[in-house]
Amino acid sequence: MIKITLPDGSVKEFASGATPHDVALSISEGLARNVISASFNGTTIETTTPLTTDGSLVLYTWNDAEGKKAFWHSTSHVMAQALEELYPGINLTIGPAIDNGFYYDVDFGDRKISDADFKEIEDRVLAISKEKHDFKMRSATKAEALALYKNNPYKTELIENLEDGTITFCDHATFTDLCRGGHIPNTGIIKAMKILNIAGAYWRGDEKNKQLTRVYGISFPKQKDLTEYLALLEEAKKRDHRKLGKELDLFHFSQRVGQGLPLWLPKGAALRDRLEQFLRKAQKKAGYEQVVTPHIGHKELYVTSGHYAKYGADSFQPIHTPVEGEEFLLKPMNCPHHCEIYNARPWSYKDLPKRYAEFGTVYRYEQSGELHGLTRVRGFTQDDAHIFCTPEQLDEEFKKVIDLVLYVFGSLGFENFTAQVSVRDLNNPDKYIGSVENWEKAENAIISAAKDKGLNYVIESGEAAFYGPKLDFMVKDALGRSWQLGTIQVDYNLPERFDLTYKGSDDKLHRPVMIHRAPFGSMERFIAILLEHTGGNFPLWLMPEQAIVLSLSEKYENYAKKVLTLLENNEIRAVIDNRNETIGKKIREAEVQKYPFMLIIGEDEEKNGTVSVRKHGDSGKSNTTMKIEDFVTVIQEEINKTIKSF
Amino acid sequence: MIKITLPDGSVKEFASGATPHDVALSISEGLARNVISASFNGTTIETTTPLTTDGSLVLYTWNDAEGKKAFWHSTSHVMAQALEELYPGINLTIGPAIDNGFYYDVDFGDRKISDADFKEIEDRVLAISKEKHDFKMRSATKAEALALYKNNPYKTELIENLEDGTITFCDHATFTDLCRGGHIPNTGIIKAMKILNIAGAYWRGDEKNKQLTRVYGISFPKQKDLTEYLALLEEAKKRDHRKLGKELDLFHFSQRVGQGLPLWLPKGAALRDRLEQFLRKAQKKAGYEQVVTPHIGHKELYVTSGHYAKYGADSFQPIHTPVEGEEFLLKPMNCPHHCEIYNARPWSYKDLPKRYAEFGTVYRYEQSGELHGLTRVRGFTQDDAHIFCTPEQLDEEFKKVIDLVLYVFGSLGFENFTAQVSVRDLNNPDKYIGSVENWEKAENAIISAAKDKGLNYVIESGEAAFYGPKLDFMVKDALGRSWQLGTIQVDYNLPERFDLTYKGSDDKLHRPVMIHRAPFGSMERFIAILLEHTGGNFPLWLMPEQAIVLSLSEKYENYAKKVLTLLENNEIRAVIDNRNETIGKKIREAEVQKYPFMLIIGEDEEKNGTVSVRKHGDSGKSNTTMKIEDFVTVIQEEINKTIKSF
Repeated sequence: MIKITLPDGSVKEFASGATPHDVALSISEGLARNVISASFNGTTIETTTPLTTDGSLVLYTWNDAEGKKAFWHSTSHVMAQALEELYPGINLTIGPAIDNGFYYDVDFGDRKISDADFKEIEDRVLAISKEKHDFKMRSATKAEALALYKNNPYKTELIENLEDGTITFCDHATFTDLCRGGHIPNTGIIKAMKILNIAGAYWRGDEKNKQLTRVYGISFPKQKDLTEYLALLEEAKKRDHRKLGKELDLFHFSQRVGQGLPLWLPKGAALRDRLEQFLRKAQKKAGYEQVVTPHIGHKELYVTSGHYAKYGADSFQPIHTPVEGEEFLLKPMNCPHHCEIYNARPWSYKDLPKRYAEFGTVYRYEQSGELHGLTRVRGFTQDDAHIFCTPEQLDEEFKKVIDLVLYVFGSLGFENFTAQVSVRDLNNPDKYIGSVENWEKAENAIISAAKDKGLNYVIESGEAAFYGPKLDFMVKDALGRSWQLGTIQVDYNLPERFDLTYKGSDDKLHRPVMIHRAPFGSMERFIAILLEHTGGNFPLWLMPEQAIVLSLSEKYENYAKKVLTLLENNEIRAVIDNRNETIGKKIREAEVQKYPFMLIIGEDEEKNGTVSVRKHGDSGKSNTTMKIEDFVTVIQEEINKTIKSF
Repeated sequence: MIKITLPDGSVKEFASGATPHDVALSISEGLARNVISASFNGTTIETTTPLTTDGSLVLYTWNDAEGKKAFWHSTSHVMAQALEELYPGINLTIGPAIDNGFYYDVDFGDRKISDADFKEIEDRVLAISKEKHDFKMRSATKAEALALYKNNPYKTELIENLEDGTITFCDHATFTDLCRGGHIPNTGIIKAMKILNIAGAYWRGDEKNKQLTRVYGISFPKQKDLTEYLALLEEAKKRDHRKLGKELDLFHFSQRVGQGLPLWLPKGAALRDRLEQFLRKAQKKAGYEQVVTPHIGHKELYVTSGHYAKYGADSFQPIHTPVEGEEFLLKPMNCPHHCEIYNARPWSYKDLPKRYAEFGTVYRYEQSGELHGLTRVRGFTQDDAHIFCTPEQLDEEFKKVIDLVLYVFGSLGFENFTAQVSVRDLNNPDKYIGSVENWEKAENAIISAAKDKGLNYVIESGEAAFYGPKLDFMVKDALGRSWQLGTIQVDYNLPERFDLTYKGSDDKLHRPVMIHRAPFGSMERFIAILLEHTGGNFPLWLMPEQAIVLSLSEKYENYAKKVLTLLENNEIRAVIDNRNETIGKKIREAEVQKYPFMLIIGEDEEKNGTVSVRKHGDSGKSNTTMKIEDFVTVIQEEINKTIKSF
């Protein structure tokens, strides 16, 4: 008999040789039907692998990331079989699962495949799947393996390089592949499959090697899942922030300025400013004080903070001065500067908390290949703030920060989020700086704050930084993708390193605690996420321009200006399109630019002091004509509906 | 006979041997009385020097910088005589005139002088002056000179090093000094003299040499001038922006962050922001669009702009990336970035002008010894903008920029200024890029704009940059000191280098013209000047905090908060001082902090819903008690009085 420990901590006894499927069956038949992969003592195994020792078992279904991985990896075997059958003589290489689907790198020889071939391949994959072939792992000797692949130089190379000498194959139907394992029980559950695209890929990622064809695919247990996925993909393409950023004239990258360094065009800069002013206002109410610090700092500053020792070599290199030979660094974070502001004068416990906020632009080196639009850049502006408080104030300050973060999410339409509390690993107390008493206080403060604010949170042991525990928010966007936004981090380290003090009620010097926090994270990344979340249809209060006046012809310029002035006097952001173009073209362009309100004016409107109002996306409806003053009331009401108070 | 050309171009004939004094006398007796120095063909001479060739003569009075220089240099001779008489055996070295007065470096041997000795020295200087000794130049041989100074190693060294072999002395009374010339006629016009301070100074500025005593002095033709100067000096000390910046908690320098890199404390950051918002608002009305660009740029960007070739070696050195080995530079100016924004899309003449504005922080290397508070820093934020327009639009755009600059000056209490138009040197046409036609257009545009706007301006030939003409404003502050503020610069160079174009009405591509402009210049320098101009009593609209609520005791906290809330709801910036301190101490501190309004509250005020209002600086007057709501009206009226509309 063997003892199997399950994730909930329960231990069950089984006869040696029992499989994960047997274990699932012992729990429920439903579970057994759905289990498609498993791991035993941390190693991925098949659901049919016999268990012969005591150990910890985790069972995975389609709903787990590990389950999907097995599903997609298995589909790549089926696709490989289909390709071999359709294109005899090709050489297969490797075919792993990835985050969304799988790929197989294939040497098609002189043959070329294209989009036109996808349907045939997909049909073949589904036909094979329908036959419900079991996936079966078996061991082989090196000689057997080399014999099987005597005509495939890629697999031969893989076999030669296998270090541990264990060689395994996976068989299904008539197909065999060199494989480490991790499959679903049977091809029958692959109900939907799609080839997404093909791309060139060098063998082993080395451009000196032959270029292979990488065939990307994805598969699902239901046709409906595939349909939804493809729709999402379509929508994500439309909402790609790089595409929208160009269409809406928000930002621009110039190779001459440097990759990963966005230039904010007028409309984008206005959007940024609007977000900044929104947060500044809330932060002012919450007792924050804005400061301004330079974008460089003496190397000594980062030696003091400890950042230089940790990141120096992988960062933008130091800037030397010509005469004195001093070394400065581009600021990678604002905290050391804020510590020096705190240190500009002595403080009493009565003065605390001090909350220093700055929209601080920082620079962090990323390899050029890793840059991506606004989400992975080399320079970005953090909506940063550092709170310096007494240990007694930590509890309340933490709650206030959560309030602020939730206000930001609510005001920008992020309704769906979870929180993660990262605490110490109690088995490794030496990893952490600061007293045990303070850690307990801080962890309890975070957990009680999370509870108090009704957050949907999980506690992760050992995920805290060495200098303090933290709370992270994971936000789901409109396409169901998760983004980490809004970190709140407790810090006992920098107050030590910068020798920060305050005089307590006991007249002695004490160390303050620091909280780092950034509800947006960075303006660049946040705007990218917001663009993809809203598709560019920002909440009305945030839109760079809330209305556009479209004239039927250039001769209504004066009236257009009159309308604009009235809007501007009422703090409504608007522009005029008075070009000599057809009204149809003007409307189409204004739709692309996502102006929430289009105000069409011509002879009648000028005569009556009215505007003909059309809302963004209302292509079917007829326009509403109203007095300008009435439109002001309408739009102000609409704007106010989108503003939450803090 | 010789021909003497005067600055107005007139030519007069004199007998050879006529002196500048004779020339002055030929014009008027009054002028002859006032002429105290002269230059002939560009070389400073005495008013008694005989003229023996044709040439250009300029006569100087006390009102000219050159006249003051001769006056102060001559006084240094008299002081040297006084010092030798009072302290026999000392060794004199050099004694030049400086911007404000003069100094003499003296080796006092074992003797030490202090503040206590100043009066005796001053009295002796004035006693000698009163005796009306003429200053007389004479030539000497090297042997004579060395014999005279056989006991003075410093003068001996100077004589040994004289390269041209001409040695001249200046005699007055019993005193002789080695001297190149440039004196007033007679000691009698030195009516007031003051020793300002003494300091250590190494012989020839080399710290390996002996340390001498540098005696700083100043002198005037009238006692009243000295009194005024000393009062101004006293006031300038009080208004030193470094001192006020500390007292008002505006900014702070940290050696750990780096010298010349200001940290803006909350009150200073708020002041900066207020100024920014003020200018943003005016710029928005004037059709500017805000943009945001990074603080670094690829080296290639500055190679393109030409800045790298010109300034690269003397600047902050390039920042290397670890993997790609790219080179970036800290941005020394914003124009190349704005050119790249212009280049982000094609433009038609109908789209122009484009006016891109940015509060852009730039970094420029200065040697540490040249740094000074906020006026000479290594990082500063320009209120920068670049206007891209057609040559035809230049005239109007230039006028609009002048309007904006004048609005800025007026809103901040700078009423006293002159303008300088810098144009080409017509004798050196090859020095300049751009067509003659465009230069003429631009120069005429600037001059006609200056005329049109009623500016008090001078035209300086040959002072234009190689890339375009410009207009500079020189502003006088409350202490009569001049500052250059607000440059408007036309540029034909960057549009070429960045290949900027627009499609004209002829459907062909044309080059736009650029205007660079910054009304403040830099936020740092402007705030320093504003601090010294206003002594920290900014216009009410600008004050970081317009009022402070001072409670008679901590028990009025709730009422204090009520007052504050009402003020804040009416957009009045205010704070509370509710510390457990005496009201006397609170008022004194609030006076130092220059809060324009102090609102004192206690039992009576809480009962009646009133505040007891005291204005900054009204130490003699009694407070006025009024309802809070009435105070809101009073302060709003006061604020509005200080706001000009644009």
